[in-house]
Amino acid sequence: MDIGFIGLGQMGRAMAANLVKAGHKVRVWNRSRGPVDELVKLGATPAATPADAFRGDAVVTMLANDAAVRDIILGNRLLDGARGTVHVNCATISAALAQELTGLHEAAGIGYVAAPVFGRPDMAEAGKLNVVVAGKPDAVSRVAPLFDAIGQKAWPLGDDPVRANVLKIAGNFMIAAALETMGEATALARAYGVETAAFLDILTNTLFASPVYKGYGAIIAEKRYEPAGFPLPLGFKDVGLALAASQDAHVPMPFAGVLRDSFLDALAQGSAEKDWASIAEVSHRRAGLDRKS
Amino acid sequence: MDIGFIGLGQMGRAMAANLVKAGHKVRVWNRSRGPVDELVKLGATPAATPADAFRGDAVVTMLANDAAVRDIILGNRLLDGARGTVHVNCATISAALAQELTGLHEAAGIGYVAAPVFGRPDMAEAGKLNVVVAGKPDAVSRVAPLFDAIGQKAWPLGDDPVRANVLKIAGNFMIAAALETMGEATALARAYGVETAAFLDILTNTLFASPVYKGYGAIIAEKRYEPAGFPLPLGFKDVGLALAASQDAHVPMPFAGVLRDSFLDALAQGSAEKDWASIAEVSHRRAGLDRKS
Amino acid sequence: MDIGFIGLGQMGRAMAANLVKAGHKVRVWNRSRGPVDELVKLGATPAATPADAFRGDAVVTMLANDAAVRDIILGNRLLDGARGTVHVNCATISAALAQELTGLHEAAGIGYVAAPVFGRPDMAEAGKLNVVVAGKPDAVSRVAPLFDAIGQKAWPLGDDPVRANVLKIAGNFMIAAALETMGEATALARAYGVETAAFLDILTNTLFASPVYKGYGAIIAEKRYEPAGFPLPLGFKDVGLALAASQDAHVPMPFAGVLRDSFLDALAQGSAEKDWASIAEVSHRRAGLDRKS
Amino acid sequence: MDIGFIGLGQMGRAMAANLVKAGHKVRVWNRSRGPVDELVKLGATPAATPADAFRGDAVVTMLANDAAVRDIILGNRLLDGARGTVHVNCATISAALAQELTGLHEAAGIGYVAAPVFGRPDMAEAGKLNVVVAGKPDAVSRVAPLFDAIGQKAWPLGDDPVRANVLKIAGNFMIAAALETMGEATALARAYGVETAAFLDILTNTLFASPVYKGYGAIIAEKRYEPAGFPLPLGFKDVGLALAASQDAHVPMPFAGVLRDSFLDALAQGSAEKDWASIAEVSHRRAGLDRKS
Repeated sequence: MDIGFIGLGQMGRAMAANLVKAGHKVRVWNRSRGPVDELVKLGATPAATPADAFRGDAVVTMLANDAAVRDIILGNRLLDGARGTVHVNCATISAALAQELTGLHEAAGIGYVAAPVFGRPDMAEAGKLNVVVAGKPDAVSRVAPLFDAIGQKAWPLGDDPVRANVLKIAGNFMIAAALETMGEATALARAYGVETAAFLDILTNTLFASPVYKGYGAIIAEKRYEPAGFPLPLGFKDVGLALAASQDAHVPMPFAGVLRDSFLDALAQGSAEKDWASIAEVSHRRAGLDRKS
Repeated sequence: MDIGFIGLGQMGRAMAANLVKAGHKVRVWNRSRGPVDELVKLGATPAATPADAFRGDAVVTMLANDAAVRDIILGNRLLDGARGTVHVNCATISAALAQELTGLHEAAGIGYVAAPVFGRPDMAEAGKLNVVVAGKPDAVSRVAPLFDAIGQKAWPLGDDPVRANVLKIAGNFMIAAALETMGEATALARAYGVETAAFLDILTNTLFASPVYKGYGAIIAEKRYEPAGFPLPLGFKDVGLALAASQDAHVPMPFAGVLRDSFLDALAQGSAEKDWASIAEVSHRRAGLDRKS
Repeated sequence: MDIGFIGLGQMGRAMAANLVKAGHKVRVWNRSRGPVDELVKLGATPAATPADAFRGDAVVTMLANDAAVRDIILGNRLLDGARGTVHVNCATISAALAQELTGLHEAAGIGYVAAPVFGRPDMAEAGKLNVVVAGKPDAVSRVAPLFDAIGQKAWPLGDDPVRANVLKIAGNFMIAAALETMGEATALARAYGVETAAFLDILTNTLFASPVYKGYGAIIAEKRYEPAGFPLPLGFKDVGLALAASQDAHVPMPFAGVLRDSFLDALAQGSAEKDWASIAEVSHRRAGLDRKS
Repeated sequence: MDIGFIGLGQMGRAMAANLVKAGHKVRVWNRSRGPVDELVKLGATPAATPADAFRGDAVVTMLANDAAVRDIILGNRLLDGARGTVHVNCATISAALAQELTGLHEAAGIGYVAAPVFGRPDMAEAGKLNVVVAGKPDAVSRVAPLFDAIGQKAWPLGDDPVRANVLKIAGNFMIAAALETMGEATALARAYGVETAAFLDILTNTLFASPVYKGYGAIIAEKRYEPAGFPLPLGFKDVGLALAASQDAHVPMPFAGVLRDSFLDALAQGSAEKDWASIAEVSHRRAGLDRKS
């Protein structure tokens, strides 16, 4: 397929590379030049402008957040000149923007598929992402080959793109809730003499033996918060997406409220450079555990 | 070994049976007669009184809660006549009682090992429990063969018995937090058109592919709350153990506070007969989801 | 003084009338014509455009929210042609917009005073508002006579306008917290047979004998939620201002998080037309009190 | 009247003195001797034993908590020999003990009136307490003269004694919620440059001009936490009474959950000697305000 690709951050770079490897013709654009050159070495074609990338059989965008999507896609009026293509939006964006974009693509006559991904950069490189896909069936079927290249599995969620975005938002909320849960549980355990590493070793190898708990459990056990795999402010932004989506839909989420405060507490103590798993430290600090020992 | 066993509920029965199968000589006592007869058929010996069971190389007790432990073990003054044995207490009890029992056993000259277990009755039958073990090294080593019979693994936590109990309490808190997390996340998703079953199918087969999330996720997706595998009031009792332990040790646990309210909300709506996973319903009800659809 | 006045809602109308009564020359503008005519009868002069009102010795604006302020003041570029006047902004706006406006006025060479008010329409009519005032001393002193006309007291808060706005936001948060407090306390009391009216009669005539508790306590006791004195969605907007301001400044506010959920719960049950005091009903409903009795 | 009085702490002493002044014949008993001597100087008669005090037309007990009530009243089997008297229990006790005592008095044929009081020691000395009274009408009317002596007003709450105790518990919860509210609001204000004293001066002289907000607001503004007027651990005990009562009656109380954590946080930081108003410090500390400035 003839594919445009916009947004070559850590994740986008790996995904675009996998599309090239899978034999697709890929035109790439990025705000900074470095990643473009990298992809060109692998066989991609550089696009001179975002508009030059936003055409073809499909265009994949992997942008950082609502602001970047608004700025690049809407700011450059990319939808105006792209009739006939299918836009595959992999960004983690707000439910509100997701709904707005659905309407704008429909009005512009462009196929629109929301396809947020779960997985860290190493999984992106290995083509092992989990991709959650929602959009009109014809649009989805046209871009199906792309998901084979970038993911281990595409999970279909029906016609309405916002569903995929909300699933991603709710999934990230679940990760944050797991972090807070481990923080509180290990603080309690430690207050009674159980070391955090011993505690998490047992729980994450038995009842909670899943990627999220094992991966973040190890980070918490080893206090491996810097350099940050996923910086705390980005995690807070994602919790904010859950808070905003729940507010618009009138869904009380008391755990999300607690998360808000834990992130603010961590930020107020100067943890902006740390991994978001470091919200676990908030519980230990509030319990005076470091003060006591 | 010559083993006494007190407490033949669903879990205790399966554990005692596995001890018999493993070749141990097991004297059993239970408040009601039925389970005793059952075990006798398998090869156990009936004990006429709790005191008759509370002797030998080791005695395992698997009682329901603090009240039952106080009533049977302390009420019958079992520690007075049991010098030389090792008491293996598998019950989920409060941190406060755990500390009290440690002192009482020491004063009575009886070995004391806290060995709470993780796993449902089917895992108990299969001898696949995870056993968390804490106590003096000599006591622990004397009863090690028992854990081979009842569990897939014994996780050592050091000398102080209370540690094993607090780990169990904190572990149960983590399960309850996972239930609330799934409740809130699925309420949010559903408000945007994502069905609970589809949502949990994706999350519990990827990031959260662990026994707790998969098992309870399926119960929530199918609303399979009755008959209850673990009734809501028992789950609330366990959350209460976390609240009590955290209070004594001055550990703020905001998630535990939210859990308290979700359980109370569920109980106030008449869910006492349902599985504790049904606290997920609280989030959906508060969001008016059943009202709307 | 020669005063412009923009925004003749229930509050603005009463404030403008008091300025006229106090002998000031008042030019009024409002989005709809009705209130303008009303004021003209009292002696005010109609302004043909917002710009026509936004000049003179001072201009008072009393607009509904951030959106209205942005739309009317910034949308019409009113600051461009008003050099020499002092803008007295009485609206309850976000901390972020307050900071932005301070910079814009400074750049435009216009005096800027934030002067949010506490009090209901009847207090506005009686000229009994409490006005919180912040701004550069020279600007504040130039507009001091206005506060004598509209309020019983002007409370000075220093040079930085945002302080007055944050005080207003934090004050409204305190009112909302009092509503939730009364909701939870009366639910607890009622569960033990104490009627809400009897409970609040005692507390609000003794320890809590203040305008907020007495006024809202009576509304809660009588369930006088409709017609709404201050509709629930507006109250939720104000809680949102506290959440936003606390987020920007990294201030954990767990009570504000609880308020968020209570408002969402009430909105999800269809209470959008009710007074914000009706969040007290959420506690009663969650406790199953209406279900039981 | 011929009155027994048990419990001469700071509050009890002042109440007993007012009964003497009002012309009643008062027999006093206290665990320690000092306060007894003091009262005798004022005209009271010393009682040799608790039983000697627990008889007459009425007996007033003003004990510290559930444990003291159980210990002195039940431990000494005072109800057994006191037929014909009316017991006026002024202590702040749990709802559960209140219900138990009602049954025990009924079984013993002794009149029982719950009469918890609101007011600090200075108000007790001035005979200005607010007394909340519940019990059978004949018992209440027999002891009515006592309330004239100790309080400015007796607030009747009907037949069931537990109601008065729950009102007291819920009232204390409201005070604690006001403290947390002021803590969060002043932290937010301070983050934007508004000093706590200025903030509380405005709010507690306008919307929140009530004894609780003015009194505690001044303590918070001046950080006058030591010596403690009401020590934090006692305040936490009272929040615990609300948590326990709400748990038994299935009443979710999210604000009470937040209070639990704020008190634990304060205790973990070593504030056990401070006034309970110092939970306001928790919000400031979590927001890093002292760290920043």
